[in-house]
Amino acid sequence: MRILGVDPGTLQCGWGIVDQEQSDPVLRSSGTIRIRASLTLPERLHRLFQELKIVIEKHSPQAIALEDTFLAKNVKAAFSLGQARGIVVLLSSLHKIPVSFYTALQIKKTVTGYGRAEKTQVSQMLGYYFPGEKFSSLDSSDAIACALCHLRHRTPY
Amino acid sequence: MRILGVDPGTLQCGWGIVDQEQSDPVLRSSGTIRIRASLTLPERLHRLFQELKIVIEKHSPQAIALEDTFLAKNVKAAFSLGQARGIVVLLSSLHKIPVSFYTALQIKKTVTGYGRAEKTQVSQMLGYYFPGEKFSSLDSSDAIACALCHLRHRTPY
Repeated sequence: MRILGVDPGTLQCGWGIVDQEQSDPVLRSSGTIRIRASLTLPERLHRLFQELKIVIEKHSPQAIALEDTFLAKNVKAAFSLGQARGIVVLLSSLHKIPVSFYTALQIKKTVTGYGRAEKTQVSQMLGYYFPGEKFSSLDSSDAIACALCHLRHRTPY
Repeated sequence: MRILGVDPGTLQCGWGIVDQEQSDPVLRSSGTIRIRASLTLPERLHRLFQELKIVIEKHSPQAIALEDTFLAKNVKAAFSLGQARGIVVLLSSLHKIPVSFYTALQIKKTVTGYGRAEKTQVSQMLGYYFPGEKFSSLDSSDAIACALCHLRHRTPY
């Protein structure tokens, strides 16, 4: 089972590919799509779409796991995040890959045992799961945590 | 100049194609993409993407006009609307068509002269602009109003 975890955003999008056959999960690849703030919104969404499409086509995940965020700072931030999330959900559908959503609480609890852990604690715990691995951003480690959460729960949307 | 106005949503999306050469604007076509609520979110966004792609490819608009909404009922609604808007903005970029955003206030003021007009008043006024035309939904008349607003202002995003 190969999972793509994604932490979407219109300026930075973390992703991680986690495999699980019989034993422990293995981190195959991870990264951060960084998008210049000077680009227009259409250019940013286009870039996100293209870069994530490359990740999907390269790694052929069997499932995509996304954080189900309802905790944006405000309505404007929610619109912005919703746009980025829409791109990821559309890509999952275009590639016929099922997508599952997990709350931040579920993800953090799965990885750290504590639902209100900080992003840095999530990243630290991932260091124990995957020793020697470097994560390119906290968004990337959040995305990997989301993939791990899916492997534990596998709740279809 | 051919404009596609869009009023996006994940269950219903209004659109309208308005032409302007030298004289008054002409309504070329309009409609409402209705998406079954029983579909999953990925299926709904996929449907929106496909249907709107067909509209764009059929009518080849030179510009797309969208309402710049920051007035969602709550953060959850803003996420949902943001996802639909992300699909429209992505399509504009994939087709290399510039997209412009207008506030509800600008759109209503352009069409009715009053920034706080109701959706039904907008629709009524469009009946004067385009006599004999029927609008398939209030979302469709909102989309047409947005296209008209673009023809008046043409503020690039």
